[in-house]
Amino acid sequence: VTSAETDLRPAVGVIGLGRMGAPMARRLGDAGFEVRVFDVDPSVAARVALHPRITAVDDGRDTIVPAGALILMLPSSGVVRGVIDHLVTDPAGSIDTLAGGGVVIDMGSSDPGETCRIGEQMAESGVPFIDAPVSGGVAAAEQGTLAVLVGGSSEHLERARPVLAPLAGRVVHVGRLGAGHALKALNNLLSATGLIAAAEALAVGTRFGLDPGVMLDAINASTGRNNSTEKKFPAFVFTRAFNAGFTLDLMVKDLRTAERLAQLTETATPLSALVAELFSAALSELPEGADHTSVVEWVERNTGCRLEPGGNSSNF
Amino acid sequence: VTSAETDLRPAVGVIGLGRMGAPMARRLGDAGFEVRVFDVDPSVAARVALHPRITAVDDGRDTIVPAGALILMLPSSGVVRGVIDHLVTDPAGSIDTLAGGGVVIDMGSSDPGETCRIGEQMAESGVPFIDAPVSGGVAAAEQGTLAVLVGGSSEHLERARPVLAPLAGRVVHVGRLGAGHALKALNNLLSATGLIAAAEALAVGTRFGLDPGVMLDAINASTGRNNSTEKKFPAFVFTRAFNAGFTLDLMVKDLRTAERLAQLTETATPLSALVAELFSAALSELPEGADHTSVVEWVERNTGCRLEPGGNSSNF
Amino acid sequence: VTSAETDLRPAVGVIGLGRMGAPMARRLGDAGFEVRVFDVDPSVAARVALHPRITAVDDGRDTIVPAGALILMLPSSGVVRGVIDHLVTDPAGSIDTLAGGGVVIDMGSSDPGETCRIGEQMAESGVPFIDAPVSGGVAAAEQGTLAVLVGGSSEHLERARPVLAPLAGRVVHVGRLGAGHALKALNNLLSATGLIAAAEALAVGTRFGLDPGVMLDAINASTGRNNSTEKKFPAFVFTRAFNAGFTLDLMVKDLRTAERLAQLTETATPLSALVAELFSAALSELPEGADHTSVVEWVERNTGCRLEPGGNSSNF
Amino acid sequence: VTSAETDLRPAVGVIGLGRMGAPMARRLGDAGFEVRVFDVDPSVAARVALHPRITAVDDGRDTIVPAGALILMLPSSGVVRGVIDHLVTDPAGSIDTLAGGGVVIDMGSSDPGETCRIGEQMAESGVPFIDAPVSGGVAAAEQGTLAVLVGGSSEHLERARPVLAPLAGRVVHVGRLGAGHALKALNNLLSATGLIAAAEALAVGTRFGLDPGVMLDAINASTGRNNSTEKKFPAFVFTRAFNAGFTLDLMVKDLRTAERLAQLTETATPLSALVAELFSAALSELPEGADHTSVVEWVERNTGCRLEPGGNSSNF
Repeated sequence: VTSAETDLRPAVGVIGLGRMGAPMARRLGDAGFEVRVFDVDPSVAARVALHPRITAVDDGRDTIVPAGALILMLPSSGVVRGVIDHLVTDPAGSIDTLAGGGVVIDMGSSDPGETCRIGEQMAESGVPFIDAPVSGGVAAAEQGTLAVLVGGSSEHLERARPVLAPLAGRVVHVGRLGAGHALKALNNLLSATGLIAAAEALAVGTRFGLDPGVMLDAINASTGRNNSTEKKFPAFVFTRAFNAGFTLDLMVKDLRTAERLAQLTETATPLSALVAELFSAALSELPEGADHTSVVEWVERNTGCRLEPGGNSSNF
Repeated sequence: VTSAETDLRPAVGVIGLGRMGAPMARRLGDAGFEVRVFDVDPSVAARVALHPRITAVDDGRDTIVPAGALILMLPSSGVVRGVIDHLVTDPAGSIDTLAGGGVVIDMGSSDPGETCRIGEQMAESGVPFIDAPVSGGVAAAEQGTLAVLVGGSSEHLERARPVLAPLAGRVVHVGRLGAGHALKALNNLLSATGLIAAAEALAVGTRFGLDPGVMLDAINASTGRNNSTEKKFPAFVFTRAFNAGFTLDLMVKDLRTAERLAQLTETATPLSALVAELFSAALSELPEGADHTSVVEWVERNTGCRLEPGGNSSNF
Repeated sequence: VTSAETDLRPAVGVIGLGRMGAPMARRLGDAGFEVRVFDVDPSVAARVALHPRITAVDDGRDTIVPAGALILMLPSSGVVRGVIDHLVTDPAGSIDTLAGGGVVIDMGSSDPGETCRIGEQMAESGVPFIDAPVSGGVAAAEQGTLAVLVGGSSEHLERARPVLAPLAGRVVHVGRLGAGHALKALNNLLSATGLIAAAEALAVGTRFGLDPGVMLDAINASTGRNNSTEKKFPAFVFTRAFNAGFTLDLMVKDLRTAERLAQLTETATPLSALVAELFSAALSELPEGADHTSVVEWVERNTGCRLEPGGNSSNF
Repeated sequence: VTSAETDLRPAVGVIGLGRMGAPMARRLGDAGFEVRVFDVDPSVAARVALHPRITAVDDGRDTIVPAGALILMLPSSGVVRGVIDHLVTDPAGSIDTLAGGGVVIDMGSSDPGETCRIGEQMAESGVPFIDAPVSGGVAAAEQGTLAVLVGGSSEHLERARPVLAPLAGRVVHVGRLGAGHALKALNNLLSATGLIAAAEALAVGTRFGLDPGVMLDAINASTGRNNSTEKKFPAFVFTRAFNAGFTLDLMVKDLRTAERLAQLTETATPLSALVAELFSAALSELPEGADHTSVVEWVERNTGCRLEPGGNSSNF
């Protein structure tokens, strides 16, 4: 990459090249950005850097583009904190160059309380910081159709819009700093609640002799329906595939994030706390790497039944 | 109504003329049936009998039409049991006339375990019996667009179809006797879970500074959505109207029915049991006659916040 | 047994000769009563009737002694109901002979709501009826040191006292009819709550690196202590014996009884309902016949730890 | 206090002079220690310094006695963290003087996870650090009969023993650093569970018509008993005094600490999580400053009954 070329194209940094970060970096490269990438595993970064407009750097601090955008796609707030602590140690003060025109974008599923604390620290150095967690999974990352929930000031979001554009089908500004992370966790909490609640209700009916498939159809035509009854049960449970593509341990992580947010805000949430604990117990009993929809298998075990459509049809 | 005319028209009995039973009886009359109605309050029956094809009778046993259909629209399994105990005491043995061609249809939200017990007793006398609870509320009852979930044998359902036709937009045969009542309760359990879970999640976000309206929009575009986030929150909660038309005490009754079914089938349902208890606590604290959506007001009280869209928008 | 002899000794009937009923019948025989016993399994009754003052009868109705006491020691309210329905069919009207001076005593762990209903029916025939469930287990039954909680009128209790005397170390009149059964179930609910709550708390500490034995000692010297931390953990859990002598399925039955009582009285009990569901889930996963203290093994499985004293002592 | 005298007596620092810290400082003074005290409110420190052997200092760093003990009695881990961050800023490096022979003792009810983090930081500077939370309340602090649960190395505990001696009736070494704080929170969790569980069970029985006093006596003679049924109900609930001397907000803080520990150790605790949420909801509804036993009043409100002995005695 010659310096002349670089000047003509906007540049962006990406730290964290996992299942989501890698395709996102490529989307940015495809869209004409010069992308500087870093991952804790250099071989991963090297592979992503096969793309003509992507360069792997040896130190996270070198992903910083003066007045540019820096995307973090990391597994947890703890890692975000560690990366940022490293960035600010740059003797060249590169992170300060973000203050004028740049922005740091945390696109992982971080802890909103931690996001606020990091934001306070960034604000002291004048570095714009927003949270912008995504949903849609790997497929949407590859196709640039992620849904992005943004928390932070409108001004900071405007700085980020150009790099979010090639990644997102939809960018929604949902509130103050941390609001994106909060809403992501709360949405997943509701999703998890709908999944396990449906499993319990179907288990009761199945043990009474109803066909889970007939029940699901009736519920989906009525007030009991939710995203899990409409989407997840037909595709991942009734097929016994249990492969929604979002693992149980990541769901438990999000449920714990929601729980911590409830504690931080001193909000009593008896039902939600129980959902988190039940998923956590399921995680302890199910094999490593299990999909989050496998929580239904755990409910089956606890109730002594199997939620298979057709299973009870002979009872009519 | 002359006797000649009566002979030409099919006849049907209806016991229980409450908010649902009265318009259902009128629909049947409009559809050309000769309807014999009974209610524990004779003045209610007299008012319904103003319809040219409806006759009020003084004793529930006189609603029985030989080889005809008898609809029960009563508040609980206890009342159904009492009515049936009375019907079988008829020295003329009128209920036995139902054995050949007739059918008794329990269209209330009864207890499925009780329905099975009553069904066993009816089977001994050879009287066909099905459960056919409805959803859709008073408006659907008036327009004949109720959704009906039927439990029982196919043969018995066929006997009931002619009288269900003018009442129902949709008749779904969901399984064995009691299956309709079971599924009704389980659907409402899932609906209640979705409502209170959404209230908790929105309360956490609101206390963190998010706008409940913005959150709801994002959730409804994502995996957290359920029937309550899509329908009930916009129409009955955010408007502060709390008038979905289904009272909290009736919801608690259905939750208790679902809980008893879980006990009868020995199914462990930690989440569902907690939902029932929380609604029950809300019933104890909220004013009499409160709508079931008022459980959100109870969550607001327990969490010290108000779920009003726009309330937190200044925080961006 | 000659008629002359019979006249000289008080007589008593016992129906139900299980692990508790059989030694109770023998205690009464030892105390000088003429005892008439019945069990659904005649070989069991024959074995108990080896006692010189015990006679096995072929029909439950023949256990009735005019103006005497009739003890029921049966597994559930359903069986109590069935037995009583049979007793009242005696063409000789023997149960009516209990009205003058006699009393029926339900000493099983029955459902208090059912006990009330049976009591109403008995009251119509003028037959005194009390509930008198016991605690203390088989050893106390053999030694006549059972603790008995009595519900019913003081007058009826006085009729029962002579036959309770050889069975009980303590007879406490706790309230109206059904009060004994209610209190038995509520006590066991509290006991179950203390057991599983302690298991959870010890699991957290164990995973943090504390020694369960050290924790238990500290808790037992402080405000966290309960009967399970003081008695059951040292004797049945830390020894890995899990043999308290009260099976998990019987505990679940009592928890369900307490839950039904909460429903009957329309009392919101979120915590207690959850305890019942957790024990029920444990019952589904644990081997048949497991002791109720094995619920701790189920908690261990859900939390991935083992509550063994000494296990973590190396961490100091 | 002359310098000569000071040299002859051991010295100790105390930071935090609240309801507990102040009497503890005085106990140390009475026992012959030279005590240097600091509180964020200088007037409080001045009042405590009226004691002849207590000196108030203007900066927390001046409480450090070379090779001496420093006691922290602070409201939360956040405050502990802030104080320690301040101590280590001393240009004179006074905290380093603790490395040789000294020890820092956190006697508050801190978060065990935070305690571990602070301990790691202290270990880097070679400063011994232990946690030593207390129970027994203000009276025990004044009389020097506190129960102290110590976490940390045996070597560090030995350094602390001389200053713990005048404060404690009992010092128990319960495990690794953080173990004291963990066990304190877990004990209070069990205590809270026993309290609210008893309230629920008594509410069910009361609504069924039993006398709460009669029930409590029976439970306390049986397996349902716990510290709350034996101590708190007779003294603080049945008297309607609700003055156990430990406020509801402090109990909620401890329950939240236990919950965070469960999260940190990834331990599924459905029951305990629900207890925390119910206490949190009660805190939201009850007046500020309410005693933790007032959670029973909240249960009464949710169940529509009053747990007063004698109230139902007329039902026998």
